[in-house]
Amino acid sequence: MRKLRVGIEGGAGFTGGELIRLLLGHSRVKIAAVSSSTFPGQPVFMAHPNLRGRAALAFSRKLDYAALDALFLAGGHGDAMANVPAILKETGSRLRLIDLSGDFRLHDPALYPVWYGRKHLAPALLQKFAYGLTELNRAEIRRARWVANPGCFATAAALALGPLAGGGLAGIASVTAVTGSSGSGATPSLITHHPLRHGSLRAYKPFIHQHVPEVQQVLDRLAGRKALRLSMIPVSGPFTRGIYAIGQAELPKGWTADKVRGLYRRAYEGCAFVRLLDEPPSLNAVVGSNHCDVFVAIQDGRVGVISALDNLVKGAAGQAVQNLNVMMGWDESEGLAAPGHYP
Amino acid sequence: MRKLRVGIEGGAGFTGGELIRLLLGHSRVKIAAVSSSTFPGQPVFMAHPNLRGRAALAFSRKLDYAALDALFLAGGHGDAMANVPAILKETGSRLRLIDLSGDFRLHDPALYPVWYGRKHLAPALLQKFAYGLTELNRAEIRRARWVANPGCFATAAALALGPLAGGGLAGIASVTAVTGSSGSGATPSLITHHPLRHGSLRAYKPFIHQHVPEVQQVLDRLAGRKALRLSMIPVSGPFTRGIYAIGQAELPKGWTADKVRGLYRRAYEGCAFVRLLDEPPSLNAVVGSNHCDVFVAIQDGRVGVISALDNLVKGAAGQAVQNLNVMMGWDESEGLAAPGHYP
Amino acid sequence: MRKLRVGIEGGAGFTGGELIRLLLGHSRVKIAAVSSSTFPGQPVFMAHPNLRGRAALAFSRKLDYAALDALFLAGGHGDAMANVPAILKETGSRLRLIDLSGDFRLHDPALYPVWYGRKHLAPALLQKFAYGLTELNRAEIRRARWVANPGCFATAAALALGPLAGGGLAGIASVTAVTGSSGSGATPSLITHHPLRHGSLRAYKPFIHQHVPEVQQVLDRLAGRKALRLSMIPVSGPFTRGIYAIGQAELPKGWTADKVRGLYRRAYEGCAFVRLLDEPPSLNAVVGSNHCDVFVAIQDGRVGVISALDNLVKGAAGQAVQNLNVMMGWDESEGLAAPGHYP
Amino acid sequence: MRKLRVGIEGGAGFTGGELIRLLLGHSRVKIAAVSSSTFPGQPVFMAHPNLRGRAALAFSRKLDYAALDALFLAGGHGDAMANVPAILKETGSRLRLIDLSGDFRLHDPALYPVWYGRKHLAPALLQKFAYGLTELNRAEIRRARWVANPGCFATAAALALGPLAGGGLAGIASVTAVTGSSGSGATPSLITHHPLRHGSLRAYKPFIHQHVPEVQQVLDRLAGRKALRLSMIPVSGPFTRGIYAIGQAELPKGWTADKVRGLYRRAYEGCAFVRLLDEPPSLNAVVGSNHCDVFVAIQDGRVGVISALDNLVKGAAGQAVQNLNVMMGWDESEGLAAPGHYP
Repeated sequence: MRKLRVGIEGGAGFTGGELIRLLLGHSRVKIAAVSSSTFPGQPVFMAHPNLRGRAALAFSRKLDYAALDALFLAGGHGDAMANVPAILKETGSRLRLIDLSGDFRLHDPALYPVWYGRKHLAPALLQKFAYGLTELNRAEIRRARWVANPGCFATAAALALGPLAGGGLAGIASVTAVTGSSGSGATPSLITHHPLRHGSLRAYKPFIHQHVPEVQQVLDRLAGRKALRLSMIPVSGPFTRGIYAIGQAELPKGWTADKVRGLYRRAYEGCAFVRLLDEPPSLNAVVGSNHCDVFVAIQDGRVGVISALDNLVKGAAGQAVQNLNVMMGWDESEGLAAPGHYP
Repeated sequence: MRKLRVGIEGGAGFTGGELIRLLLGHSRVKIAAVSSSTFPGQPVFMAHPNLRGRAALAFSRKLDYAALDALFLAGGHGDAMANVPAILKETGSRLRLIDLSGDFRLHDPALYPVWYGRKHLAPALLQKFAYGLTELNRAEIRRARWVANPGCFATAAALALGPLAGGGLAGIASVTAVTGSSGSGATPSLITHHPLRHGSLRAYKPFIHQHVPEVQQVLDRLAGRKALRLSMIPVSGPFTRGIYAIGQAELPKGWTADKVRGLYRRAYEGCAFVRLLDEPPSLNAVVGSNHCDVFVAIQDGRVGVISALDNLVKGAAGQAVQNLNVMMGWDESEGLAAPGHYP
Repeated sequence: MRKLRVGIEGGAGFTGGELIRLLLGHSRVKIAAVSSSTFPGQPVFMAHPNLRGRAALAFSRKLDYAALDALFLAGGHGDAMANVPAILKETGSRLRLIDLSGDFRLHDPALYPVWYGRKHLAPALLQKFAYGLTELNRAEIRRARWVANPGCFATAAALALGPLAGGGLAGIASVTAVTGSSGSGATPSLITHHPLRHGSLRAYKPFIHQHVPEVQQVLDRLAGRKALRLSMIPVSGPFTRGIYAIGQAELPKGWTADKVRGLYRRAYEGCAFVRLLDEPPSLNAVVGSNHCDVFVAIQDGRVGVISALDNLVKGAAGQAVQNLNVMMGWDESEGLAAPGHYP
Repeated sequence: MRKLRVGIEGGAGFTGGELIRLLLGHSRVKIAAVSSSTFPGQPVFMAHPNLRGRAALAFSRKLDYAALDALFLAGGHGDAMANVPAILKETGSRLRLIDLSGDFRLHDPALYPVWYGRKHLAPALLQKFAYGLTELNRAEIRRARWVANPGCFATAAALALGPLAGGGLAGIASVTAVTGSSGSGATPSLITHHPLRHGSLRAYKPFIHQHVPEVQQVLDRLAGRKALRLSMIPVSGPFTRGIYAIGQAELPKGWTADKVRGLYRRAYEGCAFVRLLDEPPSLNAVVGSNHCDVFVAIQDGRVGVISALDNLVKGAAGQAVQNLNVMMGWDESEGLAAPGHYP
């Protein structure tokens, strides 16, 4: 069987490391090249010491797109919209693209500058990327050549709220979402300074995190109209990996616990990576894996939904591989079946 | 100046240790005795190694109430309602009591069995304890001889929401509150098993935590009616100390940011321990101190309120000392002025 | 290809969970049964929530040894020596046994009571188990049917010091070894109480940890005499997984850096899981994998050796699988090739 | 009583924050000014949020030395030797100086360039600073006007080994010392990047840490000759505060446990901040306080010594205040009596 030749652009970051780790265990893929502007010419284990002895790969400065069948863009936000037009010009529609940045997630060109605070460099392409929240958009991804991989908060919030929106719930969902420090990437900053982050919590960008509009876009599409509205406060947590999202909303009269649970069961029926639990999830039960654990509580007309996932796997690299699997018509779990370790 | 002779019942737990630590630095108080059924006869540093060389105190098996002016009850939930009737019989109304358990927080006798799952043993006393959320109930505490010290979640949630309730806001406040492991006490259990708690998060008792009704009682009293309703999901966090509460609510038309901020400024004017911030608080800036840091965000008709405190200090022992200060007519900051260390 | 039918006795602990996780990814093995006295009849994900949806296995109360080709004993220390005689009586020498407890590691029957504080129940079997420190005892393991899997501290210390002992170094190696909390197992205790362990360090059993004599046994055998002596102080660390061992010893005149590094290179040549580094290892680069990273520093006649491994993988379940692979003549990396995630 | 007017140069770092926190509680000192080149004109709580509402102080760009009685130099390593000559020229010997950097710790001018890799800018002053390891050099500090405050590793190692050196022990002490991340200061770097530091350990500068020669200088002076030699491997630990040092050495024939313990008892008799324990210390029992907990284990001719302290308090700001107290002839515990919180 000829393996798919994949490239990773910007492979020295945490997401790049996870892409390499996962793809090394993927039976239908060969990592053809990984680029890094920081580590050109050095072995990948210089950035990802877990891979020492496991991957005979070195970073290249640039990728040869012509030699690739598929390309993961794992560079910084803004890089993709700067580079994709040229890549497409060179490769036509032959190359499958999965962009892990925020550049191509919002279909409405008016939204990008509002939430990202700058002009979009390739607005004409915005509507041509499928939004890669696999479980909630599988049909479109299957037909896509270009996928915009969702944000980590967005994945957690959309998987938590999607079934409610799809079931027609309106009103406001109040979400608190706590993230691990790896979500801020491999470059040190005050936000990830260990003495300040250890044993602490800090909310940031209350109501105005840039992942809000991509969740809203998912919810609106599932509802077929503007109905359930996301109101989210993100929090920086004192751990390395994971998103833990806690949502609450008011239920209309007549929405019984059975009805609500039925929405979730149907939404995630046959989904290998969303696990519906009978009790609140533990974050450490999903870390290292592509799972998103979801729990629904109903009490006195309120619904609480809690979702837990690994921000670098289901919230980034794992979902990217899952989307590649869907695009290629492969088993969706290929390369992703290994559970994480616990505890 | 004759010092007040205080006793601590159940002083080997984390809250007991903090009471000793704080009272050692209190200029108007002498710790007369500390009891423990686990460590009778042993020096207090056996349970609280930070106090070695700092406190020449040993645990006694029983307290001699006749020798005390004030008593902190820091034993397990249920112990206070079992013992207080006998204590009062012995001491009359002479002894000042501050109960740190949940036993005397709810004034309505019908509520206790609903939220605590058992019969109250001294229901006639329930209305005779002042609820010790100092900043929101100072006048009553000043006149009280017996104080029910609030729960840690309750303190965080009530300080976050009180000004909104007092300002007349109705509707539902959706709160997520993350707690450190010390809130579960000194006895090991699966909830506090390090391999399971480290680097993880886990929600529990969604909507049904027993601190909810005491917050509701505060909010209703501040509003003068049933108006703002608390809907809370607690979360176990991977750190030792602190409560970090994140609340959201819908604002009525016309409630501007200025109006909302004004409510908080007026509510906490002159309060040494509630600090209103211009940005979301960091939990580690309050740990070790009696402060509660509060931040208010207003966006598109939504209000977000974030409060941070140390569950063992402002959420327990510190507020207990603060309440003693208020009852005695002393400077409210006496024994509590030292900031925590940072980071 | 007929798969080897393996059983796991005592599979609800952390080591049992890792055995299941690793064996699920092993191409030549089928997990026939997993026993637990705590969770009989329940799915394995009740104890190991990472495995939910990944393993259609339930715990049985007892194992049917006749249906097994190989058995991992992952119960508590003392269980193996109590049960193995009966198991052997039932199965003869047909069944391959890998005991993960401390029961069969010491060949000298006089040592067990000294270090474990009780009588050995099956002293006649002590010399019949091969000591399963794979890299340093591969030839014997290859011929063995019964293997005593090393302790986690022992693996870290022996891999750090073995090449020096093998090279003839005498004198004393002073070792500090820091362990994660998962080494204390799944049952909560004060040692693993999160509020006490978080952000702290605590040495224990200085010089007298029960893993010392098994390392000494390895060193003596490699040296062919009593030469290098281990002096170890273990430390409880504030993390879940890993052993980080730091050793120091005096070098004889003439032992150059080249000579010392050569000993390590030769000792671990061709070993997939021992990685020799040019700088001190990071513990998080080995967590989740079967690797042991080793670094050697030479300065002014002193040698420093630092080894890092995952106590539940290379220090327990992973090495057990590695030993099974060696016993069976399979590729030593089978089921163990996946790197851990980083960070 | 006229209070001593003290200034802090470089007060926006972690050590500066601790100096302010401790001096706020010091009855004989008034903080006259605190400088910072990063936060000039801003309130100190911008850098030290724990001090909000507790300190009505703002950072100044420069200090007016003429207005000070004592000065703490808490800037970066190298700043002190660059600035002290000019300060002394301006103030003569009137001003008491406590330098918290490494600039004036080594008396031998030849050592500085070897261990710090650069030329010393004021070598003539090196022998004029007393080395401020209070318990082991109190007499000299009492007479000094200028004190070089020890390094955090140095304090932990010297307090652990000093009594052995003073008692005449020769040979090599093998020390592993684990440090919290706050030791790297307030500026983010890869070493303190939370995703990499959390849950991990990493040794660095094995045998060649710059604190080694200052400990050696202490040991040699206590011994009156070159005898006990320090061989140290530092380790970065996954916690914010503390140094945990584990030392081992060989005892000569006839050095009984009683003799060794006697050395420690005599060395630290009457010392309020060194607590000799009967079991290994827990790091969290000293964090936030000026204590150093020490435990000695003797076994089969080996001695193990374990010391635990807070790197920012006894390892920096606390010991600096202690030294000021000694210089001024005040109670050594003034401003330092408050225990840290536990857990």
